[in-house]
Amino acid sequence: MEQIIIFDTTLRDGEQSPGAAMTKEEKIRIARQLEKLGVDVIEAGFAAASPGDFEAISEIAKVIKTSTVCSLARASENDVRRAGEAIKHAAKGRIHTFIATSKIHMENKLRMSEDQVVERAVQAVKWACEYTEDVEFSAEDAVRSEVDFLVRVFEAVIEAGAKTINVPDTVGYSIPSVWGERMAELIKRVKNSDKVVWSTHCHNDLGMAVANSLAAVMNGARQVECTINGLGERAGNASLEEIVMAIKTRSDLFNLGTRIDTTQIVPASKLVSTITGYPVQPNKAIVGANAFAHESGIHQDGVLKHRETYEIMRAEDVGWGANKLTLGKLSGRNAFRTRLKELGIELESEDALNAAFARFKELADKKSEIFDEDLHALVNDEVVQDTAELFKLVYLQVASQTGEIPHAILTLNRDGMEQRAEATGGGPVDATFKAIESVVNSAAELLLYSVNNITSGTDAQGEVTVRLSKGGRIVNGQGADTDIVVASAKAYLNALNRLYVKPEKLNPQV
Amino acid sequence: MEQIIIFDTTLRDGEQSPGAAMTKEEKIRIARQLEKLGVDVIEAGFAAASPGDFEAISEIAKVIKTSTVCSLARASENDVRRAGEAIKHAAKGRIHTFIATSKIHMENKLRMSEDQVVERAVQAVKWACEYTEDVEFSAEDAVRSEVDFLVRVFEAVIEAGAKTINVPDTVGYSIPSVWGERMAELIKRVKNSDKVVWSTHCHNDLGMAVANSLAAVMNGARQVECTINGLGERAGNASLEEIVMAIKTRSDLFNLGTRIDTTQIVPASKLVSTITGYPVQPNKAIVGANAFAHESGIHQDGVLKHRETYEIMRAEDVGWGANKLTLGKLSGRNAFRTRLKELGIELESEDALNAAFARFKELADKKSEIFDEDLHALVNDEVVQDTAELFKLVYLQVASQTGEIPHAILTLNRDGMEQRAEATGGGPVDATFKAIESVVNSAAELLLYSVNNITSGTDAQGEVTVRLSKGGRIVNGQGADTDIVVASAKAYLNALNRLYVKPEKLNPQV
Repeated sequence: MEQIIIFDTTLRDGEQSPGAAMTKEEKIRIARQLEKLGVDVIEAGFAAASPGDFEAISEIAKVIKTSTVCSLARASENDVRRAGEAIKHAAKGRIHTFIATSKIHMENKLRMSEDQVVERAVQAVKWACEYTEDVEFSAEDAVRSEVDFLVRVFEAVIEAGAKTINVPDTVGYSIPSVWGERMAELIKRVKNSDKVVWSTHCHNDLGMAVANSLAAVMNGARQVECTINGLGERAGNASLEEIVMAIKTRSDLFNLGTRIDTTQIVPASKLVSTITGYPVQPNKAIVGANAFAHESGIHQDGVLKHRETYEIMRAEDVGWGANKLTLGKLSGRNAFRTRLKELGIELESEDALNAAFARFKELADKKSEIFDEDLHALVNDEVVQDTAELFKLVYLQVASQTGEIPHAILTLNRDGMEQRAEATGGGPVDATFKAIESVVNSAAELLLYSVNNITSGTDAQGEVTVRLSKGGRIVNGQGADTDIVVASAKAYLNALNRLYVKPEKLNPQV
Repeated sequence: MEQIIIFDTTLRDGEQSPGAAMTKEEKIRIARQLEKLGVDVIEAGFAAASPGDFEAISEIAKVIKTSTVCSLARASENDVRRAGEAIKHAAKGRIHTFIATSKIHMENKLRMSEDQVVERAVQAVKWACEYTEDVEFSAEDAVRSEVDFLVRVFEAVIEAGAKTINVPDTVGYSIPSVWGERMAELIKRVKNSDKVVWSTHCHNDLGMAVANSLAAVMNGARQVECTINGLGERAGNASLEEIVMAIKTRSDLFNLGTRIDTTQIVPASKLVSTITGYPVQPNKAIVGANAFAHESGIHQDGVLKHRETYEIMRAEDVGWGANKLTLGKLSGRNAFRTRLKELGIELESEDALNAAFARFKELADKKSEIFDEDLHALVNDEVVQDTAELFKLVYLQVASQTGEIPHAILTLNRDGMEQRAEATGGGPVDATFKAIESVVNSAAELLLYSVNNITSGTDAQGEVTVRLSKGGRIVNGQGADTDIVVASAKAYLNALNRLYVKPEKLNPQV
């Protein structure tokens, strides 16, 4: 069966979601899971965006063996050379360069003529070919570009050495019948179209990213660009899990396969959700908590009588139920280390492992059963704290009583100095945040506060996400603890640390 | 321009999501918002499911004036007559009857022959015609039914008086090109197809509910069945907001309109989310918090230079930013009542208004700015508490300190008797839940615990959702308060009240 190339851009386009910026360590953990999932190409970042992005791509290129590692680059010499350097150590490396081809973008953003755009695109592909044979070219805003001009650009870049031609619906504007036709027309009209793999990259603004991608596949595309959980700016990108499961479930229509190990889908979804702080809604296809749950009476009866009456996929095929109880209070250091390794988590040093193990023991005292999700959260918390430790929680005491004003007392470590603070508020979390602010005075705006239990049961850890905005920058902070107020304090401090420590970077649009 | 009929089934198919069962009052509030939104048909429930469902449909039929009010009914005399009674007082009433037409369902679930199914379908439509001229017929699992048999059934029910023929993808199995073809083929082959409105009803298991619905529209369907936020069992139904905005944004392709006031979309989304406890993920199209937010540097530059470079819709057109500050500490009872009325909230008595106003004043003491969402939560809390008051929180005191075991002391009112309890736990919420359980001893399993801030800012109210499972039943409880621990206690008690008070009911599948 012919194979579809799954190109995952969770680490590049997904990371451009507000507040989803990840550290190098977080990106490596996700890249390892994507490799385990069987993704063909991992777009690891945009090398020219920042030194941090460059370094993350470079590290991922060293660590990943079976997937191709790709860096995005605008069609400029500096961008392409940075991308080339970043993927230098990859077992299989790709450079993905792009330029806008729609009138509206060429006139208003690039301020370039058609001839200039073609020339620049060809030049960018040639620069890229100095570093790797695996060069991909994207025509930004292809959805609103003229087909005649697209044909001209694509013929020129294929001639120049591009091996993959990507056709993006940058603004999520198309519908399947139209998008399929466009793909078919391009493949038919581009003279050297048989020399390349055709690809599609769809956004979800009208809710049709997956259907548009599959319409392109039906019409000759053999690579799909997508993200875990459909993460991405605005309404996000096409969901990897929906694309893969549609092709698999409807193999009668597609007659195509992917190399994805579908049982790794739910673990990948949970990892990305935990690291980015982006929740998955219960009624999300494939990876939502309800995707395989049935409420209806008639329905349950139907399922019992004959499984296929209502089920078109099996929950276990996408990795549901795989995350069972793994460790308990009596588990030793070796069992802990082995389980982390199985989860694809590799801590950098013995010290980091010891610290994580100490926290595991602390957690096991409070919580009777430790699940894989708890381990991810615990390590996440650990890595996050290592990364940027300007502010740290030393001590926290809150009291709350109906009819009284909630009150928080805390001690923060600020760059080595301990500072005490107290405040009252509308609730214990509000009082805690106000006490922190009385020390930090960030004046950041709290955009979002949400809590999700990592596992079920009343003694579960709460994972708190806090989104702060200051001077146009948006950051997500996270914290996990069995105590929701402590988790909230950690999340708020984590967000402040990111706000004060993390550098700005540039996010491109494809 | 030809109009598409928007048939909303949030109150019927949406309500079948685990734990999303709503009270009569909640359904009426949503129905009012759907009417304001301009929905053509409101499927208000399934009259034969339970006396509560019957009563809710009946009340909605009395209250709603411009939208058609519909009840679902299996193809049985009792179901159809119950539906007919329930819509009796509607200004415009519809009965929607259905029977399965796929081999797998007829053999395994119905255990009926093709002839029996046709006979029953015709009979059901005839019974329905005794109550209203507006009769809809659905062929359950049409996606896996044989076209020849569908043609036979549809011709027979149209002959019997059905005015709308609905073609559902019950299991979310189709893809747009195939689904569009099926609609076209049915309309072409059914001899009396011009006498009816063709409708589609799609599920989202492979992420294509919206695209499939629109493919049906492209091929002659003129009614789309959908839900707010895509709520529904498993991965949910087609999203109303995505269907409507796709038709509007791509009017160049569809050349069709809807009667929807799109500025009411976001308020409807928030109301449904608040009432059902189902969050909307940030990267959800149209109604997700990020749908209109941009992170990327290049992108922002593009937007500034020329608005249309990246925007295909305007946030204000779908109702973002409409919910501004409405009331404050000094607002009086009249302002409060007027604003509630504008929000479509009508409290049943002067006493209920007074109680809500007292709670509003209490909230305004703790929170400087009161938004529409706060009012919804407040009234929701009020109504919910009125509905089923077996357990009620009287007093709660929690203390939590790093290094110490969290401790909760509380007093519950159980059916008029006050009981005191205390417990320790992994955190203040865990301690509170354990204290409640020491009184109630429900032994229910906590499936889900989540918190979302109703508005931004540290003094915002937290809205807690608790999902409990016991003996195969699943309920959601909710509570809102500026104190997250108090909100959690309220949510837990609300879930217990629903578990102990709410009757079971049957949920059909279409």
